[in-house]
Order: sequence, then structure tokens, then C-alpha cells
Amino acid sequence: MKSAQLTAIGPAEKTVKCIDVSDPGKPGKGEVLVDIVACSINPADILMIEGNYASVPETPCALGIEGAGTVVAVGPEVSGLKAGDKVMSLARTNWVQQIRDKAEAFVRLPAEVELSQAAMLKVNVATAHLMLTRYVPLSKGDWVIQDAANSGVGVDLIRLAHADGLRTVNIVRRSELIEPLKQLGADVVVVDGPDLAQRVAKENGGAQIKLGIDAVGGSAIGRLTDCVGDGGTVVNYGLLSGKPCEINAFNFVFRDITVTGFWLAKLMRGMQFGEIQAMYAQLAQRLVDGTIHVDIEASYPLDKIADAMAHAKRESRGGKIQLRPNG
Amino acid sequence: MKSAQLTAIGPAEKTVKCIDVSDPGKPGKGEVLVDIVACSINPADILMIEGNYASVPETPCALGIEGAGTVVAVGPEVSGLKAGDKVMSLARTNWVQQIRDKAEAFVRLPAEVELSQAAMLKVNVATAHLMLTRYVPLSKGDWVIQDAANSGVGVDLIRLAHADGLRTVNIVRRSELIEPLKQLGADVVVVDGPDLAQRVAKENGGAQIKLGIDAVGGSAIGRLTDCVGDGGTVVNYGLLSGKPCEINAFNFVFRDITVTGFWLAKLMRGMQFGEIQAMYAQLAQRLVDGTIHVDIEASYPLDKIADAMAHAKRESRGGKIQLRPNG
Repeated sequence: MKSAQLTAIGPAEKTVKCIDVSDPGKPGKGEVLVDIVACSINPADILMIEGNYASVPETPCALGIEGAGTVVAVGPEVSGLKAGDKVMSLARTNWVQQIRDKAEAFVRLPAEVELSQAAMLKVNVATAHLMLTRYVPLSKGDWVIQDAANSGVGVDLIRLAHADGLRTVNIVRRSELIEPLKQLGADVVVVDGPDLAQRVAKENGGAQIKLGIDAVGGSAIGRLTDCVGDGGTVVNYGLLSGKPCEINAFNFVFRDITVTGFWLAKLMRGMQFGEIQAMYAQLAQRLVDGTIHVDIEASYPLDKIADAMAHAKRESRGGKIQLRPNG
Repeated sequence: MKSAQLTAIGPAEKTVKCIDVSDPGKPGKGEVLVDIVACSINPADILMIEGNYASVPETPCALGIEGAGTVVAVGPEVSGLKAGDKVMSLARTNWVQQIRDKAEAFVRLPAEVELSQAAMLKVNVATAHLMLTRYVPLSKGDWVIQDAANSGVGVDLIRLAHADGLRTVNIVRRSELIEPLKQLGADVVVVDGPDLAQRVAKENGGAQIKLGIDAVGGSAIGRLTDCVGDGGTVVNYGLLSGKPCEINAFNFVFRDITVTGFWLAKLMRGMQFGEIQAMYAQLAQRLVDGTIHVDIEASYPLDKIADAMAHAKRESRGGKIQLRPNG
């Protein structure tokens, strides 16, 4: 069967190759065999492939943080999963036609879910959900601010917050993004730049903002932090600017603001399987009810992996790039 | 009686004047009258006088964050204080010969305490104590790192940590400070600069550092944050560099480090009087037992306030500058 593997750290479009590997074989005790139907290509995949992630993998190695598919067979002593079930994979080796793994590597999804959408649940949707729920207790009507608001996580966050009655201030870099984000449920959208805090206060009526979410670092997190109310929390989850976070010390000392970081892989290592399963069941329901929907710009088979990588690296896209390992 | 007051926001040596004000009169119900014996001049006093503090006071106004003295008289319904008791003042108007205020504006001190030392307890010693105890649970043998280690707070922190069996890494800017700080109980003293984290790890045997304490901001807090272990906390309490805190986003996202701020005035507003009293009773005992001792470089009467201000603003001093309102 086919597997897209990393041959050496380097430019993704050159170093990821589609190779033939042996079939995984029948599931053993407590194991499940899954056909991977759809995989998303994430920024974190690219960071890892190009050597810019928290850890640099030894090559050659399998790849793919996200994937969703259908159970083909279950081994003895597996409960809760059966052939034909739709599942999301918790493995990080999903760019492959089939995976055989322990039952706890898969989360069962509702039958109504589209697998191409389910293949985008694990990272971005969970990131948006966990950042909205793990740091600051928020009630209906409370305000959250984020930058990179048109990113994958940013859009999911707007949709989830809106569905839960939270209000969002969204920082973007181009004014043509204002209307599209408002269409998705964004309450306020502002273009980054000088006097951001004053402009945000004008737009949201000066309401206190309890939580800030930053994907950029650099001076952008500093401007975003200026917008958050006294005693608020700012969560940094991205490294988009590649620059050190520049935050006015006044915000720490006199405004009692806390800055902390979010990393999905680490947070999930600290969660029990039952908790992970319950979270994704809840989020999968958001796919079914239409709260969350992500546009897909293109899908590629595994043997066009170089094209898929090059496409995923383009700055301006209208949607996600996916792999379809089984066509 | 004499009072040193701020006439207008501006250079401290020009804008603080000694003026004659009316005597405070006899204490009423629940009130206490105190002769102020010694007052310290703090960086926060200067910041406020020169318009660089969290809030800018309306002028003219009384001044002086710290002061200690002797109870002269108590009004009806005051318990726990009597004439002759030594007290530390919680008021922020201590540069004066006498204060009349409610009993909860004063903390009773042990009779053995030197008032000139007690006049330095309120801000720096409490700041060091609260930063060591409020953010991260620390046990004997645990490591803490701080910059500006030769500052007033820095030296108090070394002494308190050493007395409690904690170990400190101390960042300084000049190598001639290494030996004097080691004499005070510092475990490791390093000069700030490139590769700080590697040099610190070499000096402390690679032991994990749970708490970082930064008074500088700018790029210094970034280097200090690099030294703290995964999951650690960095507390920023000073604005010495006047520059935005520059912290690598990697430390937030992948190393789960939290940065927060400390402001004594705000933290104490959230404490009950009983808690404040108990804290200062414990810290006053550290003066009596010699754990804490601060050198005094010079003392001035109130009518030499301009000289006192100019002296307090000098960068290199061998100790605190104090006022002695009653000679």
C-alpha cells in the first residue's frame, strides 16, 4: 500500500515521497484496522517536515497529524467500534492507505459526518475549542479577541464562539477580510495597526475583553495584549511572525495580565482517552449541525504528494488542502 | 509640622518641597496618632513623582510609600496598639512628622526592631516574600532565578530564599557583583549576556528552575525565560529597561511557560488586614533575627528633601536613602 513519508528534513515539496510499504495485516487483540479516507495538511505538518517544530523527527518516517476514515476490521476484545464505523485518527502517521492501531487511537464519529470535514476536526477545531474553554471562565456575552482571525483556527474560533453566545473581536491584516468574517459570525473585525486598543474599544463599546488569543507573536501580541482588560489572559498558540513576543511590561505589572501558551499535542497528552473521546464527539456534532464547516480548495492522491505540499505552502488559499489516500 | 509634598509632576529634586502643614490633632474613635521616625525613598516614589507610575497623582499631594514610627496616642475603641508601640505605616503619605489614621493603617512591630530597618519592610521585603510564595509552590532545594539581583528587592530575595532553603540563580550586569551576592547567600551568580541558559545550566548542574523573577523587561526577560524549566512561571515586577518584554513564543507554546506580573499595591488591596498584619509580623521577625538587613547610605531631614531626592536618583549607591522627619 501507499504511504507518504519524510525522507529527509527539508522543503516539503522535495522531501516527502510516496512509497510502497507492506500492508498492515489483520488487527490483533484490542486493535482496529482503518481505511484512511481523507487527511488534512496542517501548518504543523509543514513545520515538522522542514525542521521548525518542537521536535525534529528522525527520517525516514511516516507523517500526517490528521486523518479520518472507516473501520475495516476489529480484533478480539475491542468494544465500541465495528466494521463500517466512521472514525477520526489520533495517530500522527495518517498519510497512508490503512492504519492498524489500538482501539484508543481512534474516536468514533456520528454516521452522518462527512469524512473530509472530520479530517479537519482534530487540530484546528480542537485548538479553538480548548483555547476558548481551558484558560478563562467565559459566559454568554463575554468578549474574546484574536489575531490571525482569518486562519483555520481563527475561523473555527469565530464559529464556535458565536454558536456559544460569546462575542469576538477579530484582528486581521487586510480590510477585505472584514466582511467575510462578519458573515461567519464575527462581532467586530479590525485591521491591525497603531492605536489598536482605542479602535477596538470604540468598536465594542469599551466592553472588557477577558481572553486574548494570539497566533503571531512579535509586536502583534503586544498590541493584542493592550486590548485585553485588566486581569485578563492572553494565550499564544502560533509562531507565525517568527519573532519574539513583545509585550509592554506595564500590562504585566500594573494590569495583572497573564500570558501563557497552548500546544495541542502537549495538552492532549495530559487528557484521558475518555475525555478526548467526549470532546471530539461534541465537536463532531458541530460538524453535523453545520456550526463548523471548512472549505476544501483541493484534494490530492498520495502519489501527487509533491504537488499537494507545494499547494499547502501557498500563502493565499481559499481552503484546506487534503489528501485522499484511497482515491 | 513639616511635610514633604509634591507640588507638580516633574524631576523629583525640583518638585518635592518641604512645607508647613497643620498638626493632625488628637486621634478620634478607632484612630491612632504616630510619630514617623524613618521613611525610605523608593523607586516607586520617584516614578510617581515624575509621572511614570500606574496612576499620576493630582498635585499638590502628600507622598511617601514607606514609613515607620512610634505610637503617640490612641483614640477610643482601639485595641492592639498603645502609646510607645513601634509600628510600620500602611499609608502612602509617610513623608511627614506625624500621621493620624485608623488603627488598620498601622502594623505593630516587635519592640526589638530598629525603626530605620522597619521603614524598609513594607515594599521590597514584602515584594520579595510575596513573589517567592504566591505563584509557584516551592520546597526546600528548589531553584529560583532572578535578574537585577543586586537591587533592593533582589538582595532581600536572596536572603529570604537562602533562609528558607531555596536556591537562587542571580543575573547581574557586572562581574564585580558576583562575590558580594554570594556572600549574602546567592547559590549561583551569572553575568547577563548571550548563551545565558547554557551558562546557568552549567552553573546549577542543569537543575530545573521553577520560578523566574524579572525586574528589567526588554530582551533580559526573554533570556531569563529561556532559563526557566518547562511549565515554569516568570513574574515581571519591574520596568527597569523601559522596553517591551521580548519573549520567544517557543517558550509559551512548546515549553508551557506562563508570564505574569506583580504589583504590590494591587495585591495588597486584595488582602485582608489580618493577613497583611500576619505577613509583616513574620517579616519583622526576619529583621530581628538578622535574615534581612539593608544598608543605609544616608539619612536626611525633611527640609533637605531636594538633596535627598537627588541622592536617591543616583544609579550607584551603597545603600538606601532615608528621611528622618523628626530628626
